Amino acid sequence: MQLGGNGNGLGAGPLDVVRGEDGFWSVTTPPAVPGFHYYWLLVDGVAVNDPSSETYFGFGRPTSGVEVPEQGVDFYDVKDVPHGEVRARWYHARTTDAWRRAYVYTPPDYDTNTGARYPVLYLQHGAGEDERGWSTQGRANFILDNLIAAGKARPMVVVMDCGYTFPIRVPFGAVPTVQELEQIGEAFGNLLIADLIPMIDATYRTIPGREQRAMAGLSMGSMQTLQITLNHLDTFAYIGAFSGPFSRLKGFDLQNTASGVFSDPAAFNQKVLLFWLGAGTAEERIHGLAKAAHEALDRAGVKHVFYESLGTAHEWQTWRRSLNDFAPRLFI
Amino acid sequence: MQLGGNGNGLGAGPLDVVRGEDGFWSVTTPPAVPGFHYYWLLVDGVAVNDPSSETYFGFGRPTSGVEVPEQGVDFYDVKDVPHGEVRARWYHARTTDAWRRAYVYTPPDYDTNTGARYPVLYLQHGAGEDERGWSTQGRANFILDNLIAAGKARPMVVVMDCGYTFPIRVPFGAVPTVQELEQIGEAFGNLLIADLIPMIDATYRTIPGREQRAMAGLSMGSMQTLQITLNHLDTFAYIGAFSGPFSRLKGFDLQNTASGVFSDPAAFNQKVLLFWLGAGTAEERIHGLAKAAHEALDRAGVKHVFYESLGTAHEWQTWRRSLNDFAPRLFI
Repeated sequence: MQLGGNGNGLGAGPLDVVRGEDGFWSVTTPPAVPGFHYYWLLVDGVAVNDPSSETYFGFGRPTSGVEVPEQGVDFYDVKDVPHGEVRARWYHARTTDAWRRAYVYTPPDYDTNTGARYPVLYLQHGAGEDERGWSTQGRANFILDNLIAAGKARPMVVVMDCGYTFPIRVPFGAVPTVQELEQIGEAFGNLLIADLIPMIDATYRTIPGREQRAMAGLSMGSMQTLQITLNHLDTFAYIGAFSGPFSRLKGFDLQNTASGVFSDPAAFNQKVLLFWLGAGTAEERIHGLAKAAHEALDRAGVKHVFYESLGTAHEWQTWRRSLNDFAPRLFI
Repeated sequence: MQLGGNGNGLGAGPLDVVRGEDGFWSVTTPPAVPGFHYYWLLVDGVAVNDPSSETYFGFGRPTSGVEVPEQGVDFYDVKDVPHGEVRARWYHARTTDAWRRAYVYTPPDYDTNTGARYPVLYLQHGAGEDERGWSTQGRANFILDNLIAAGKARPMVVVMDCGYTFPIRVPFGAVPTVQELEQIGEAFGNLLIADLIPMIDATYRTIPGREQRAMAGLSMGSMQTLQITLNHLDTFAYIGAFSGPFSRLKGFDLQNTASGVFSDPAAFNQKVLLFWLGAGTAEERIHGLAKAAHEALDRAGVKHVFYESLGTAHEWQTWRRSLNDFAPRLFI
């Protein structure tokens, strides 16, 4: 058996599954951290899914997954509160001359409070995932339902689209290069600005304008968020980077990082209403990069939030917690 | 390789997949009929999915599938017409004291024509499938979008829920007994009447009342439709049985079938505004049962529509065509 993540307590290498005398195959894993974990079975070296698991689109294909509950934590559970909807919305993108499907969360009162208009969060998945990830693996709809019911977040529309603009995705098991990620991000950014945002603002009762528009993403989606928003501060005022700092940020360079957008901290602070960076403490490399960025931004006087998810890895539990921290800070 | 259907041209038995000198495994199938076909791979007798296929919930688990286009046929394609939405709606069912997810199709003008109210079609999947089947495998949303755009069907809400009320489903590869199917249908019927319909009428801008409410289903969903609607003619006026005649209908018995509802044809004809039976000609047993029911209904003077899908089997192409024939006859 192979686990899709690492730093989750389950080890990075494959685990041996042993056939017992009763004909059943079994494996005992080390204790896992809480949250959602991708996994698959290796049969003679070929990766196949567990026939007893639902599948989740990750690693560029449907992949088995298992949920480990976190004791005493229910912020992403379905609860007895008013529920919004996740709507599959088909639209034609001129940028690619293709039909696409976005998932759109509408808040619980959307269909009853018909005079109301709403701010919009664009929320992106990671490499190898698609528009289904945030609602299925991430439970973004339940997180928003619960925050809104508790009065902790403003009712908002959340748009979850596919961050790829072409059918070829990163092959199973391959790690995308920085160049590939930047090309993917540039193409998606063009589509987001030219097609997706205008379609959303024309179709839903949104409040247009940068101060009512946020973007966030996880991992590859975080890099896309930074790449796109920092080049379009006229379009977005709220920015969330979940487990994906600047792709080239080995050392933070105030003058040159992100085309110099940080070189005038006062101007940045005035323009950007929220700049949010976060990572799990168990995803050591990315946590280190995020922390270094945080410290450099602090030194430069760039206002931001730095969030650490204790003990969680480059996995959905980190991103559920990130959304739960990020969403209440939006549009206030 | 094993195909999930039969009568589709691909044969009922497994097909040998052969390893070539280049290390690639290959198989050449006989020509398939058009439409969607479930399949999986048998590795040393264990059923696993094709790693290169998207998965579709069928046979009680995620299953590989392949789409064979039908030449010149585009009624279920995504086209340049106004699109409705498929909305994931969570609700709590008192009948089972559990949270459930229904998929709800809203027509293209639902959010703009806010003074309008709509009739509702309850549309059920088959055994081993769930609430995702009709929009994913069946493309019900595109079929409705295209019919509505062409002025051939009234804009309507389509509710696609899971026909099971408990987590235990028919095990992979097992054929449900008539008793099991009737128990499943009775439990779902109780939930439909007590929870689902009231929730839908309270949440969406529907037109309540039997003359604005239809139910249809495929295979197991067809048996559920007959079981539920014929016992609740005060709730439904339009009935569609796609590839699933009366479970006990070996010989049609005017006095006793469906608790004698056909014993007074004039009363039935006045009450039921559409009674629709259909099957694919390649699903020979079920087609034979549907045809026998059609002939018995004709002899008894019970008004109905009998639809034959030429050359298609107990598969989604039959049910796409069935919906395309059925929907224009509703609410007129």
